Amino acid sequence: MQLLTTLITPACIIDEPKMAANAQRVAQHCEQQGVALRPHVKTLRSLEAASIYAPVPMPITVSTLAEAHAFSEAGYQDILYAVGLSPNKFEQVNTLLNNAVTLTVVIDSTTAAEQLCAQASMLEQPLRVAIEIDVDQQRAGMAAIDPELITVANKIAATPSLIFAGVMAHAGASYGCFDATSRNQMAQQECQQILLAAKNLEEAGLPCAMISAGSTPTVLANASRDGLTELRAGVYATFDLVMAGLGVCSYTDIALSVLTCVIGHQKDKNWVLVDAGWMALSRDTGTQNHAEDCGYGLVCDIEGNVLDGWYVSHTNQEHGVIKHKDGLSPGAAFAYGTMLRILPVHACATAGQFNEYHVTQDNRSIQSIWPRIVGW
Amino acid sequence: MQLLTTLITPACIIDEPKMAANAQRVAQHCEQQGVALRPHVKTLRSLEAASIYAPVPMPITVSTLAEAHAFSEAGYQDILYAVGLSPNKFEQVNTLLNNAVTLTVVIDSTTAAEQLCAQASMLEQPLRVAIEIDVDQQRAGMAAIDPELITVANKIAATPSLIFAGVMAHAGASYGCFDATSRNQMAQQECQQILLAAKNLEEAGLPCAMISAGSTPTVLANASRDGLTELRAGVYATFDLVMAGLGVCSYTDIALSVLTCVIGHQKDKNWVLVDAGWMALSRDTGTQNHAEDCGYGLVCDIEGNVLDGWYVSHTNQEHGVIKHKDGLSPGAAFAYGTMLRILPVHACATAGQFNEYHVTQDNRSIQSIWPRIVGW
Repeated sequence: MQLLTTLITPACIIDEPKMAANAQRVAQHCEQQGVALRPHVKTLRSLEAASIYAPVPMPITVSTLAEAHAFSEAGYQDILYAVGLSPNKFEQVNTLLNNAVTLTVVIDSTTAAEQLCAQASMLEQPLRVAIEIDVDQQRAGMAAIDPELITVANKIAATPSLIFAGVMAHAGASYGCFDATSRNQMAQQECQQILLAAKNLEEAGLPCAMISAGSTPTVLANASRDGLTELRAGVYATFDLVMAGLGVCSYTDIALSVLTCVIGHQKDKNWVLVDAGWMALSRDTGTQNHAEDCGYGLVCDIEGNVLDGWYVSHTNQEHGVIKHKDGLSPGAAFAYGTMLRILPVHACATAGQFNEYHVTQDNRSIQSIWPRIVGW
Repeated sequence: MQLLTTLITPACIIDEPKMAANAQRVAQHCEQQGVALRPHVKTLRSLEAASIYAPVPMPITVSTLAEAHAFSEAGYQDILYAVGLSPNKFEQVNTLLNNAVTLTVVIDSTTAAEQLCAQASMLEQPLRVAIEIDVDQQRAGMAAIDPELITVANKIAATPSLIFAGVMAHAGASYGCFDATSRNQMAQQECQQILLAAKNLEEAGLPCAMISAGSTPTVLANASRDGLTELRAGVYATFDLVMAGLGVCSYTDIALSVLTCVIGHQKDKNWVLVDAGWMALSRDTGTQNHAEDCGYGLVCDIEGNVLDGWYVSHTNQEHGVIKHKDGLSPGAAFAYGTMLRILPVHACATAGQFNEYHVTQDNRSIQSIWPRIVGW
């Protein structure tokens, strides 16, 4: 049993009981709302982590075909690859289908449908294809009222080896919703828009078996889910400072942190230097426009208790600079050699900087090491 | 021989001839300036890449002990670990020393010296210790005129198993020098400050065998190097848009790029969606304060030719949005399924998102795959 104090820093720590509590909270919320949950496994890309918040036989969402491959090998049967499919990935998709997986891919244009249909004859098993719907003008997807939606769905439905699966959407704009009212409105908006798309398709004789929406902020909102077949969310497994800044969780819910060690000080500036730079924390500064700008992360003691007002103000590749928001002088809690933990601004980005996670149940020792599925 | 067109995207591409030319340029510049070069291998953390710009028996700089381990196993004998040593890494350092490596570590405080000296008896081979000097108020290091400098050096020199090696500095402020004059001044400043520290130490009977300074912008500047024993730099091997923005290189010198594929469009916004998000490009937006803000990267065709005015304006985890700076409509060059290459804002950050590099000599096919040394 390895103690946290003996780890080489920086290291990515997962607090397993907190993760389990987060998983339970979202699962219960979805149950109360009467809608199925399809967790997104992209934050941690870990089979062991998923066994807690998305155990087999749950359906899952992935952000890469590398994840789809690893999770299908581990027994996951129902996988949604939620990034628009490109032609150079058709062969990899075919390999996945041959593993007897129910794989759903997404596209959002007539051109993509045409290219997919043209190559569909190479598929040895049927492929489910959903259309991405743009519900918030943030990223990808077709408008719910776009007449081409019917064209795309018809092309898919008419092609042997392809199955028209339905519609999916991600309301990324929910990351700008700082109170429950606006999150409820955004949840309502994503539902209304995707249901409008589904209605238009169904009226054209193209029923949607999948009507899938969600993001961590909207999944935890209160809105009617009538008509949706499922909700999707991912970062809730660990939460992070962006989610805390929105009010979706509290700091004490955050299940991921970066263990670091004090390597020096600049006394005239009240700076503490640590060995976690952006290579460990990531370059994400996603709370810049929040009421509390957490810089590159908030500072905790080695057991994970937040040290009020201390944050990582700037970073180099392997150096982090910790300051107090009111310019206080760091005392004995920040002595040379002290181990600290940094709460991540954006857990998906921070986790992505590591190839493995050190898992603790008591915040003192490490019970397991979970590998991360890497690459694309 | 694999063609670029058949790669799974995103993929990290290295243009080997460009890297070789960059390596030669810096090596020649240092030769002309009459000073030895100790390349930093932290950008790519690749033995194969280093064999081009830092071949054995060159001395090298590393940012992690994981690199020190891998490079020592590959025959590198003289390694500077340029991040302040923390007590939890003493054991790993001891293991490295037993591999018959000349390892130099850095510290920058009396407390660090005391802890290192107290634990030095566990070392089975002598460890070289340099003091980091703060030459630009950016990060770590002691001031050249700090009287504690002598205390620290004396403690090291008086401890069996420790060798006082000298002084080192990194002028990170050079990343804010947008013309040759200011870079020359910064190069002069780092030299003057570190030489002042060395003079103070030598006058106290503590001669500095190592007087090491440098950063890519200052190494390529013109300043007197008299008295320095070596220069250090790293990102020059590939260069990037930050370096191009400073005027240290041109876009066509950049030897690293991210291969990506067009997955869709938002026609009403003139957006092109690609499958390289921040997970591939990194969250670094280090040209934000430059004359030309390159967003998350500049866009090239598959052969690496810059498509004038096109840049990655925003990113999600696996989605990138490409726009033209004047709002032009993307034409056939951005059709669905087209492969593009993105020049990195900060090569160290972008390379860090990948576990391997695809290496091309002709910008059409892949000749090698180089693994990246991962972890800490």
